Amino acid sequence: MIFIDACFRKPTPYTPIWMMRQAGRYLPEYMAVREKAGDFLNLCKNPKLACEVTLQPVDILGVDAAILFSDILVIPLEMGMDLKFIKGKGPIFPEPLKDESQLCALDENAHLKLTYVYDTIKLIREKLANDKALIGFTGSPWTLATYMIEGQGTKVYNIIKKEIYKNPKFIHKLLKIVTQTVKLYLEEQIKSGVNAVQIFDSWAAALEEDKYLEFSWSYIQEICTYIKSKYPHIPIIVFPKSVPAYLDKLDGDFDVLGIDWGTPMEFAKDKIGDKFVLQGNLEPARLYSKEAIDDGVQKIVDVMKNEGHIFNLGHGMIPDLPVENAKYLVKRVQELTKR
Amino acid sequence: MIFIDACFRKPTPYTPIWMMRQAGRYLPEYMAVREKAGDFLNLCKNPKLACEVTLQPVDILGVDAAILFSDILVIPLEMGMDLKFIKGKGPIFPEPLKDESQLCALDENAHLKLTYVYDTIKLIREKLANDKALIGFTGSPWTLATYMIEGQGTKVYNIIKKEIYKNPKFIHKLLKIVTQTVKLYLEEQIKSGVNAVQIFDSWAAALEEDKYLEFSWSYIQEICTYIKSKYPHIPIIVFPKSVPAYLDKLDGDFDVLGIDWGTPMEFAKDKIGDKFVLQGNLEPARLYSKEAIDDGVQKIVDVMKNEGHIFNLGHGMIPDLPVENAKYLVKRVQELTKR
Repeated sequence: MIFIDACFRKPTPYTPIWMMRQAGRYLPEYMAVREKAGDFLNLCKNPKLACEVTLQPVDILGVDAAILFSDILVIPLEMGMDLKFIKGKGPIFPEPLKDESQLCALDENAHLKLTYVYDTIKLIREKLANDKALIGFTGSPWTLATYMIEGQGTKVYNIIKKEIYKNPKFIHKLLKIVTQTVKLYLEEQIKSGVNAVQIFDSWAAALEEDKYLEFSWSYIQEICTYIKSKYPHIPIIVFPKSVPAYLDKLDGDFDVLGIDWGTPMEFAKDKIGDKFVLQGNLEPARLYSKEAIDDGVQKIVDVMKNEGHIFNLGHGMIPDLPVENAKYLVKRVQELTKR
Repeated sequence: MIFIDACFRKPTPYTPIWMMRQAGRYLPEYMAVREKAGDFLNLCKNPKLACEVTLQPVDILGVDAAILFSDILVIPLEMGMDLKFIKGKGPIFPEPLKDESQLCALDENAHLKLTYVYDTIKLIREKLANDKALIGFTGSPWTLATYMIEGQGTKVYNIIKKEIYKNPKFIHKLLKIVTQTVKLYLEEQIKSGVNAVQIFDSWAAALEEDKYLEFSWSYIQEICTYIKSKYPHIPIIVFPKSVPAYLDKLDGDFDVLGIDWGTPMEFAKDKIGDKFVLQGNLEPARLYSKEAIDDGVQKIVDVMKNEGHIFNLGHGMIPDLPVENAKYLVKRVQELTKR
């Protein structure tokens, strides 16, 4: 699998490419299956349909890896928290956690309830071509904990931050519980057949540097160490979104570092050197125009030169991007980076 | 005025401090006046009440500068766009700009209609103590244009970005019109009595580096050059939020660079050196706790050492921060940086 080779910095015939949220609303085929499922959570919980949408972008776009179709919030959901996806508002936990006394109600065996995810993985791995990698994933403990405390997306994160500055023990306790679940969840994903795992720290930029290292990065490191010690052949990708200023302080037992589109690839390469393979970082909005794709791909390839690089967007696909441009991007990257 | 001295890197008895959104909802005195005004826009348009809330934080907290109470969106409003402030949703333009043909309907003399702002400034300058500076401000052309095209706050900015990658001429035309108005608006503010001006580029991080330099920074530079050539004694503060990776490329005819809380001060200092005075950058959520204030202030002061620094938050005050902690912060900074 050239995707796995690239994660381990082995030479590949071209730079492999996949796209965050490649199984998403921009694909009419995805919308049809989602319609059939009824709603987003039903789709996540239905292995047959989740498998179908996972495979779609591999068939339609020709990307080099599939990513498990699921949602990072299935962990808090299976820990016992009510979760609703409200149209136009995104995910909401109507009863977010208020204090330490509620932690004992969280199910510490949530990973055992996520069988629909493991069943989906097994199905996908059966049907996916042998030369294509399947990526499993999780949210970082920090990103998950933030949802559990804030209850929904937020601009200022003031509820969880108030706790961090006034009552850090509560948040650390929560993070420890979530970290333990994430470890076991990723382990089950690996046992079910994923070839690589990605840890999404989507809300990395919510914290200032010191607090980020303490409340997010240290837990990510713990997860990486655990997984790496047991499954050294499984590449780990970490994606801490929008924290360019201290990228070089983000060390750990992982293989690939995801770079968001706001961080110029040249800057990232300069900070990281060959320490980690880099994944990213095309601005998704460039997919509105083929000229913008050409220009953007060229700039990234000029910096990375088909070495230590996995091509990706710097954030997820936008729902109204044209499918034909996504196909064009994949073709362009595979051509332009051919050895 | 020690604030103005600090902007020009002259020695000051201590590091001056003010806080973004210091006249805001965390102050019961502000809420009382806002109640009286009826709504937010009425408050902006009422010089007597706007003057009153501008002065409140100077009296209550003892900060070294007042910032004009107003909103960046009065420019598109007076250009003829309908503007609504909806509770819990923020500002909304119900009829955002769709294409180039609508540009001719924008009033290019909007700066002449903003008399309520100039009247507010005159009133404030009469009542404000002579040793306290009054800061005027504007949104950057990019940030204003984004509101005018998107119609409201957004996570992905996909409407304006689609234009940028497909039809950049439309956006450049709009930016030129807005830039012209911003120049004249700042000029009128200066003539009315402000002692310094700040350009807020709140949505700087919406664009990747190249596009940022082209669609935002170049227009900011043009404004700075215009103002500086006519009013060299007026310090210009520019605040491009959350673009640490290319801070060092942000050159221009201004005096002070605002640093958001996500950019460590050490990193900013390292990138900028003595090229600009730095303003910032305490994480506002530290104001939830006195210990967190002590710790945060000390870290910043250790880096900046009362040289080339204006103390501020790295973002606006959060509505539920305790007033007594804001007072404590001002006292702490003024004590700790005393020469």
